[in-house]
Amino acid sequence: MPSPVDASPTRGTTRDRMLFTAAEVLREKGAAGVTIDEVLARSGAPRGSVYHHFPGGRSQLLTEALRFAGDAIAGLIDDAATQGCTPLIRQFVAFWERTLAESDFAAGCPVVAAAIGSADADPALTPIAGDIFDRWRAALTRAFVSDGFDEADAGSLAVTSIAALEGAVVLCRATRTAEPLREVARQVEFLVQSREFVHRFGLPSRP
Amino acid sequence: MPSPVDASPTRGTTRDRMLFTAAEVLREKGAAGVTIDEVLARSGAPRGSVYHHFPGGRSQLLTEALRFAGDAIAGLIDDAATQGCTPLIRQFVAFWERTLAESDFAAGCPVVAAAIGSADADPALTPIAGDIFDRWRAALTRAFVSDGFDEADAGSLAVTSIAALEGAVVLCRATRTAEPLREVARQVEFLVQSREFVHRFGLPSRP
Repeated sequence: MPSPVDASPTRGTTRDRMLFTAAEVLREKGAAGVTIDEVLARSGAPRGSVYHHFPGGRSQLLTEALRFAGDAIAGLIDDAATQGCTPLIRQFVAFWERTLAESDFAAGCPVVAAAIGSADADPALTPIAGDIFDRWRAALTRAFVSDGFDEADAGSLAVTSIAALEGAVVLCRATRTAEPLREVARQVEFLVQSREFVHRFGLPSRP
Repeated sequence: MPSPVDASPTRGTTRDRMLFTAAEVLREKGAAGVTIDEVLARSGAPRGSVYHHFPGGRSQLLTEALRFAGDAIAGLIDDAATQGCTPLIRQFVAFWERTLAESDFAAGCPVVAAAIGSADADPALTPIAGDIFDRWRAALTRAFVSDGFDEADAGSLAVTSIAALEGAVVLCRATRTAEPLREVARQVEFLVQSREFVHRFGLPSRP
């Protein structure tokens, strides 16, 4: 589930650069912190490009930036699904350890930021965040199914992995250490192995 | 980890009512959404009470509201620690199912909201959120230790439970269903039982 803010699209179109920058501000400051002025200053885009590319203004820029981030991450889960879930979880952890360190613990997940922003100020964002979480869950469920889990177990492990790892990133930002992410990842891997054991062999008997 | 917004302090002091209300706005709208005007309107406190009780203004009100919420929840974990961890997790889930339903999925955790708010706008909040998460983790670690886990396992399960359940609440708000919380709680309980099995009997052998 690495973020699209992974590699700067310096050679992208102005439109993509603005979306990338808006997603970057969203994940650092929450929806309320995303202003046209900051997106222009950080992206270097000329002011006229806002209404050229985003005639709906800030609101359109914000919703498209969120979709752009969600799509990029869903694509990465889909690509990784054939490798199995443990490498995917490790890839997520490595990405977030790097991102937290590079941003000095300022950068979180733009989709979490959108999900808990103010429904009054930006009412369109929460349902889009919900759709994105549903898509990630579906993609990760397919990955667990391809690892041999049945549909119900796969769906439950998918939602648990997303919740636990997203929650861990919140804890890391607040406590300024990547240790919660490593601990949580270790327990999620153990959970998946335990579920796999029970799925294949049934509940272990006490010696 | 139920929130202090569990029971309305209608008969509390004006100061407590303002703190309670500020925590309520924080968990619905994020830090950026907390304004003096809204806290006064919702709490019914007179305008003069702001600078009487909170001479530091909005910033003091917000940081004290966050500490008030964090302390209340830490106290609940401490109280429940003697019952064992599974009842504590179930109590958390029941509280959040009720809160999400009653608020029509508008109310999240005020500490998560504070943790990921804008460091530019409210720089004091993130470190306080970090301290609160550390205290919850310490309280929950003691609960797992009193359940028979060693310190390392207990600490790791504590941080994982907090991350997974907090992440689940974010998913519930975004997808407008309590189902992620129920799934995640089920997996966390399974994880705790599996860890307990391994702790007592070692890794199970494949039949």
